[in-house]
Amino acid sequence: MATYFLRAVSWKDVKIEGGFWGPRLQVNREVTLNYQYEQLVKTGRIDNFCRASGKKKGEFEGLRFNDSDVYKWLEAAVAHHRATGKTSLLNVAIRLANLICQIFGPGKREGTPGHPEIELALMKLYWLTGKKRYLATARFFIDQRGKGFVGGDEQYQDHVPFTKQEEIVGHGVRAVYLMSGAADVYRETKDKTLMDTLKRLWNNMTEKRMYVTGGIGSRYAGEAFGKNYELPNDRAYAESCAAIGNIFWNHRMLQLTREAKYADVMERVLYNGFLSAISLDGEKYFYKNPLQSDGTQRRMSWFRCACCPPNIARLLSSLGAYFYSISREGLWVHLYGESKVMATLNKDKKIILSQSTNYPWSGDINIKISSLHTQTFFTLFLRIPGWCQKAEVLVNGKQIKEAVQPGFYLSISRTWREGDEVQLSLSISVDLLETHPHSSNNGRLAISHGPLIYCIEAVDHQGVDIFDILLPLNTTFSPHFESDLLGGIEVLRGKALLRDKSGWEGKLYRIYREKQKTKLNLLQISAIPYFAWANREPGKMLVWIQSEKS
Amino acid sequence: MATYFLRAVSWKDVKIEGGFWGPRLQVNREVTLNYQYEQLVKTGRIDNFCRASGKKKGEFEGLRFNDSDVYKWLEAAVAHHRATGKTSLLNVAIRLANLICQIFGPGKREGTPGHPEIELALMKLYWLTGKKRYLATARFFIDQRGKGFVGGDEQYQDHVPFTKQEEIVGHGVRAVYLMSGAADVYRETKDKTLMDTLKRLWNNMTEKRMYVTGGIGSRYAGEAFGKNYELPNDRAYAESCAAIGNIFWNHRMLQLTREAKYADVMERVLYNGFLSAISLDGEKYFYKNPLQSDGTQRRMSWFRCACCPPNIARLLSSLGAYFYSISREGLWVHLYGESKVMATLNKDKKIILSQSTNYPWSGDINIKISSLHTQTFFTLFLRIPGWCQKAEVLVNGKQIKEAVQPGFYLSISRTWREGDEVQLSLSISVDLLETHPHSSNNGRLAISHGPLIYCIEAVDHQGVDIFDILLPLNTTFSPHFESDLLGGIEVLRGKALLRDKSGWEGKLYRIYREKQKTKLNLLQISAIPYFAWANREPGKMLVWIQSEKS
Repeated sequence: MATYFLRAVSWKDVKIEGGFWGPRLQVNREVTLNYQYEQLVKTGRIDNFCRASGKKKGEFEGLRFNDSDVYKWLEAAVAHHRATGKTSLLNVAIRLANLICQIFGPGKREGTPGHPEIELALMKLYWLTGKKRYLATARFFIDQRGKGFVGGDEQYQDHVPFTKQEEIVGHGVRAVYLMSGAADVYRETKDKTLMDTLKRLWNNMTEKRMYVTGGIGSRYAGEAFGKNYELPNDRAYAESCAAIGNIFWNHRMLQLTREAKYADVMERVLYNGFLSAISLDGEKYFYKNPLQSDGTQRRMSWFRCACCPPNIARLLSSLGAYFYSISREGLWVHLYGESKVMATLNKDKKIILSQSTNYPWSGDINIKISSLHTQTFFTLFLRIPGWCQKAEVLVNGKQIKEAVQPGFYLSISRTWREGDEVQLSLSISVDLLETHPHSSNNGRLAISHGPLIYCIEAVDHQGVDIFDILLPLNTTFSPHFESDLLGGIEVLRGKALLRDKSGWEGKLYRIYREKQKTKLNLLQISAIPYFAWANREPGKMLVWIQSEKS
Repeated sequence: MATYFLRAVSWKDVKIEGGFWGPRLQVNREVTLNYQYEQLVKTGRIDNFCRASGKKKGEFEGLRFNDSDVYKWLEAAVAHHRATGKTSLLNVAIRLANLICQIFGPGKREGTPGHPEIELALMKLYWLTGKKRYLATARFFIDQRGKGFVGGDEQYQDHVPFTKQEEIVGHGVRAVYLMSGAADVYRETKDKTLMDTLKRLWNNMTEKRMYVTGGIGSRYAGEAFGKNYELPNDRAYAESCAAIGNIFWNHRMLQLTREAKYADVMERVLYNGFLSAISLDGEKYFYKNPLQSDGTQRRMSWFRCACCPPNIARLLSSLGAYFYSISREGLWVHLYGESKVMATLNKDKKIILSQSTNYPWSGDINIKISSLHTQTFFTLFLRIPGWCQKAEVLVNGKQIKEAVQPGFYLSISRTWREGDEVQLSLSISVDLLETHPHSSNNGRLAISHGPLIYCIEAVDHQGVDIFDILLPLNTTFSPHFESDLLGGIEVLRGKALLRDKSGWEGKLYRIYREKQKTKLNLLQISAIPYFAWANREPGKMLVWIQSEKS
């Protein structure tokens, strides 16, 4: 283990049952995976895959990259080996990787893939086998960017060499997969120019090009990042696969830097821009995740280019891997939710930690520690989310001496004993968010509640055009848990104003006159978590709500 | 001549010299046409054209529709015949049209063009030759929409039959060319369902889907119309060719209905979303005409898909045709500007009318009438623009009895004598425009000055980020004519506020707190006509300016 970098605890060693995520993972296992297998068979993708591997004869059908959906569903060969210990599928992957390394590389054929993804696979093979050629080829592919092999333009991150890139540009999914690959290569090479580039592009993304839901990619044209502050609501592309890639990237940055800000973004994407991609019943998916809708956008069972559904299932299946990490000092808790982890610390010390919590509906998290040893000295790192304005920690009922600072990891170093308890209380307030004045959402407000971004839906506001709702600047929302609604959610209720649009019929523009004051009527509104939208009857949806002053 | 419809006076009978348009048409004749011919030669388009017509051997080069740029540059064969009386080119066109009519039609091969344009050409041939088959085929192509011959989707206006279309959708240029073709077919068939459709789609466009510049097509993806109120500024597509097609369509609607609102839109497009497409020196062109820019959008000399430059030159060359029409009652003046028209009225009465004016910089228009007869009774129809808040008309120095109503044609029926003078005074105020509350420009204001939409450019506001400029709600602008600036324009000067962005560094979102009031500093700003932007050093540009309340 590298001395500084964190290492994620494998999803195999994390059990998620109950709470917020447990039932979702159950739906994923029992409904989504079977349902998607049927779709893969129905749409000829399994046949394609078998033909490609020589097991079946005939012509390839559909889009030329359709077989990649099968690979994703299968999660490639490394996970199969890790889970089962079998090498049958692994050997297929190794033969393919060897062929690639034989053809491409310094002094061999030049070039780089049109869609970064193989870099991650090569690095996984490298970590499994220790063979340097996989690392060298992954590095080679990253260094080949900017030489014009894949178009020479921003769309493919091929406009300048990787380490010269100043802004995050081009196809959203490609971009974050490339970043994830570069992060993996940095982990082994510790090449500072790679990390400098990753931080520069991460800053550009989070400070200027990421939706409040964590979604990325503002443009339909090219499924691409926009310019700074170009974040349209209705035409947000925010592809589900880009959200997943964004989780990959942030998870890697977190491992490499130990900085909680990466976990904050990871969590924001997970609960919002990622989770919105799948219906509550597990059978329908969004390809795009807009922040405003006229009601016509609905999740679908499948897509012609069906990268997203298997990718969503894969992320949910491996969700446990994002919860915990280990370092030489001890155990890191990144995400909160009902779960149990068995982690092997330094010097082979095995501990078990379990979380009991109703997070994100509640900020109270009860952590219990047990160990296979009678007592174990290690540091427990607890993430205090950046969105949290107040947090308290008790160990075995007693206040700790360490300062609890939002946006950082709290470290508690002590000799832990079987049955020790940590009580973490995160204040989960309802906040109104505003955005940078150069964004077109200037003058609008979004509602957040802990890690969740909320939205308003037409179905909760019958007889009203929700695009005419204005938020008073001093409004307050109160949360109500409704167990029968949308699988059990906290609804936020509060007062708002309704604009009277009379005078605007048949007009798009008019001369502004100060006396034409808009009439406003008071009304009660209900907001629901963004991830849960479009699970009831179709209708308008809105995240960024106009404020009283707009 | 149909009894009710107007008929445009040919561009050949309208002389435009001096004033606003004269120098622009001179640049078009002396610079643009020659310059574009060179580009057509350089890029192999003339060669393609000669190969297609059998005059030259070899393979076609470039995009498969590149030869259409030559056709546009040549303006097809009908104009050549009308201008020169020669039939050489006309006969080529007739042979092609006959072939098309032989292949396509009821009972023959079904289908409709992927890009509407031939409907207009067939109608021109019909009017020239009187042969019914051209009308029948044009009508046939319009009736074929919605049958799935060109994709069956909205992008090609092929989702439902033409007369069942409820909203204006799909590729912007295709849409307005299709509307123009349908308007031409209506002129001959008087089929009410066609006109009902045209009015329904025109209302949808002007009330919900047209930029304040008259530009249309909000989306890069598909170069297409957006949904209602989807009008992004920086990513406005607003293709130059779509602006031209919009002029075509409105000009036809005006002829068919006599309603001044169509001339209002035609004028709005002409002075803003169309005129912005060409540089002041006549050598560079915009393909897209955004309403906000970070400074990277610049006009270019040519494009791989070079539909726009020859189309711009063609519109300018034939600009005179949009100024005047005749009806059985007399002469209609649609546009104002230094010009002289020779028109042949009912019973072959010839009259000459000349305008002397500095329009649009001034609203004073002096109209002089001369006739080849000693005296002539006819009605003079003068358009009173909808944007004008006050207008006065004197005939030979005397107030007229007719009411002058903005948004309508004023009709003056009398016996006109050689040397009669009409003085029209349109008040040209500076107005702040606001937009429908469902648009993302809600809370912003645009500045208009007569038919012109204004913008602010970075070059006039050194040391300031113009995206931080806010307009006070009670601001007033005063016009100053600057003859040395941008070919001579009226600059608008007024007071505004500058937002202090401190506290936003490195942040895209933050919790809204009422006490975080933005600091504002007073500054003087200068606005220039939108059409003149990007003719100086590159920098930011903005049409919709945030208001004090946003």
